[in-house]
Amino acid sequence: MGEREIGIGLLGCGTVGTGVLEILGRNVEAVTGHTGVPIRVRKVLVRDKSKPRRVALNQDILTTSFQDILDDDSIQIVVEVMGGLEPAGEYILGAFRRGKHVVTANKELLAKRGPEIFESSRKHGVMLRFEGSVAGGIPIIKPLEECLAANRIQEVMGIINGTTNYILTKMTSEGRQFEDVLREAQEKGFAEANPSDDIEGRDAAYKLAILASIAFGTEVSPDKVYTEGITKITPLDIEYARELGFVIKLLAIGKEVDGAIEARVHPTFVPARHPLASVNDAFNAIFVRGNAVGDLMFYGRGAGDLPTGSAVVADIIDVANSILSGVPAGAIGPGFVTWNGGRKISDIDSVSTRYYIHLKVIDRPGVLASIARAFGDHEVSLESVIQKGRGQNPVGLVFVTHRVLERNVRAALRVIKDLPVVMDISNVIRVEGEA
Amino acid sequence: MGEREIGIGLLGCGTVGTGVLEILGRNVEAVTGHTGVPIRVRKVLVRDKSKPRRVALNQDILTTSFQDILDDDSIQIVVEVMGGLEPAGEYILGAFRRGKHVVTANKELLAKRGPEIFESSRKHGVMLRFEGSVAGGIPIIKPLEECLAANRIQEVMGIINGTTNYILTKMTSEGRQFEDVLREAQEKGFAEANPSDDIEGRDAAYKLAILASIAFGTEVSPDKVYTEGITKITPLDIEYARELGFVIKLLAIGKEVDGAIEARVHPTFVPARHPLASVNDAFNAIFVRGNAVGDLMFYGRGAGDLPTGSAVVADIIDVANSILSGVPAGAIGPGFVTWNGGRKISDIDSVSTRYYIHLKVIDRPGVLASIARAFGDHEVSLESVIQKGRGQNPVGLVFVTHRVLERNVRAALRVIKDLPVVMDISNVIRVEGEA
Repeated sequence: MGEREIGIGLLGCGTVGTGVLEILGRNVEAVTGHTGVPIRVRKVLVRDKSKPRRVALNQDILTTSFQDILDDDSIQIVVEVMGGLEPAGEYILGAFRRGKHVVTANKELLAKRGPEIFESSRKHGVMLRFEGSVAGGIPIIKPLEECLAANRIQEVMGIINGTTNYILTKMTSEGRQFEDVLREAQEKGFAEANPSDDIEGRDAAYKLAILASIAFGTEVSPDKVYTEGITKITPLDIEYARELGFVIKLLAIGKEVDGAIEARVHPTFVPARHPLASVNDAFNAIFVRGNAVGDLMFYGRGAGDLPTGSAVVADIIDVANSILSGVPAGAIGPGFVTWNGGRKISDIDSVSTRYYIHLKVIDRPGVLASIARAFGDHEVSLESVIQKGRGQNPVGLVFVTHRVLERNVRAALRVIKDLPVVMDISNVIRVEGEA
Repeated sequence: MGEREIGIGLLGCGTVGTGVLEILGRNVEAVTGHTGVPIRVRKVLVRDKSKPRRVALNQDILTTSFQDILDDDSIQIVVEVMGGLEPAGEYILGAFRRGKHVVTANKELLAKRGPEIFESSRKHGVMLRFEGSVAGGIPIIKPLEECLAANRIQEVMGIINGTTNYILTKMTSEGRQFEDVLREAQEKGFAEANPSDDIEGRDAAYKLAILASIAFGTEVSPDKVYTEGITKITPLDIEYARELGFVIKLLAIGKEVDGAIEARVHPTFVPARHPLASVNDAFNAIFVRGNAVGDLMFYGRGAGDLPTGSAVVADIIDVANSILSGVPAGAIGPGFVTWNGGRKISDIDSVSTRYYIHLKVIDRPGVLASIARAFGDHEVSLESVIQKGRGQNPVGLVFVTHRVLERNVRAALRVIKDLPVVMDISNVIRVEGEA
């Protein structure tokens, strides 16, 4: 109250940190238009002060010591954009203890330790905001938590990893192999040198843990998220998907089914007419179904300096406005509100969905009958079956099932795998979304 | 403040009012999960107490007198879902004077009298929320005002009238005439008995006035919005659009160009690959371009009892939370913040865009030359020209221009209209959006 300006301390000056600085410098009119007072960057925590940087920075504000930021009383908001579990977690908790508010874009930390960190912010009467942690610049945390608060959310389904969406888009449009496109993406800087968090689905699983916690009002820890990456997707699967009227996307899926929560990340057959099907390249999109609002989709850039910076600076403006008008911390803004707490998170075994199953079999009379019997014995009912490569040996057999229990599919496949005519279970991909 | 519950008074019990009551009844768990206390409907203002209603209502809470609501001290929030200018405006101002907060979904009132009404809410220290006034259930007001506050918004482009989008979708997929589809839409209840606000673009213009005021931080009054409806669109235009790689949509467009604001509603050629092109039927979508976040799109149901009710109840929850935690009114939440105030709203004459121009001409040598000369004389440069119906007389000539000034197009067309070979200027439709 009575503050004439708001001071921030930035932890980290990598991609997102640079974006934050660039926005605060370039969009002064919009930022101060929404706060009424200037936002001043007081200190920036870096590892190496002498490293050349893309944004012009007063060298005096660079520091290599977090203590400098803690001790600076003109800093009311600590902005954590360094990422990773530690020291980010320790710094955030330290900021709380000194009565400083925190804005973060750290998905891994929030996914793994969100409840503990929120509890600490409440205990110390300070604010914690994290719009930038999921889907970069796309407003999704606040819309889910506030704008859709009147809904029972039934489903959240998103393309929330840009790297894998870029790879799948290229594989789809150019018919290329996974490894080949990954290498090109790494050369172009679209994929990291160590891409495993992205391509194995862990990055998406962290984001889904946060999204699902907010959407369903219950704690969803990332180790409860069933996670499968895109490394086994082949051009052949993509081609079969197209013939069947689908595209393959890495989806992060949260659903409330019979009071329990499904949370899973895996490659998915999406109907070509579904709004998520045409989300290409590095774009992200999140499809939400609420029992009042119906179907919604939020689409935009899910990563990058300026898009993620846009979300981080919006959070800074929010916290600044709350400080300036004396809003009690915790009064507003999304948290990990567990109003629907203690929901069971379903095992993947008890998920019901449709499946695409691609087998390699020896083409001889009776082969289909023996496989169909194995499915039938396990209550897996089939919607369609297509034989590919007639006259070759082995041939491809492609099944699409009706909605069936995952555990039944797995049981059937254990039997099918051992049939003498079956050479290989090439791929099993879940099918989601009505067209 | 110790309130144990929040009381609301509902003004109107039509489509949206019924949706609000249904959500408050059905989603108690989600609603109280977000507020911590019950939301009680204390009174409902109706014209006729004996009218049968879809939701079960205690007859005792129905009233035909607004004074009853004003005098009820247990009502902290007045929820105006009656629509229209009066008495809605008078009631809202009356509520403010009694210290009551207001949630409204009234686009016409806010578009025409927003600044005055916000000024009054500030004067009386109460809150005013209006998420439901634009695009029904799609969260757009709060995302624009808060989540994108760090951006200079460059463009807001939306399909924000479901009736016209339904009509254009049917005309496109079935090749039918406007009047024919309109009649069917009226029979099915998708279009009103008096559809002129929708089909003439006024409904979209009200919503654009609100959106543009928020996006650009400057007052945009609806009489400054250039407005053209869809009544002149023919199946032939739709067919030519398709051949050229476009679809025709009624777009509401706000842009900041050289410091001035363009605000216009008109049928538009949208590239088939643009995210807005595949928004069909009664769905709405709003495309936003910010200088930090890049391109975003928000998609969902733009009207209806439950979708609009979802936005209204979210606003009720927001206001309730602010009351409960003692947040000062005006401290948070979107208003008509004119931080970028006093921007010039451009005349349609000074807009620069591309144009589709469809002429009927007599097929004789030299006709193209004389028309091309008229365009050239007025600095209208042409991207393509196609002759349709060779051998017939008259024939169709279809031009697509490069980006040119509207006033130059108009001047050229005045000359072209008087050329003896030109029988008719069949249609002129603006072209927007890169693919």
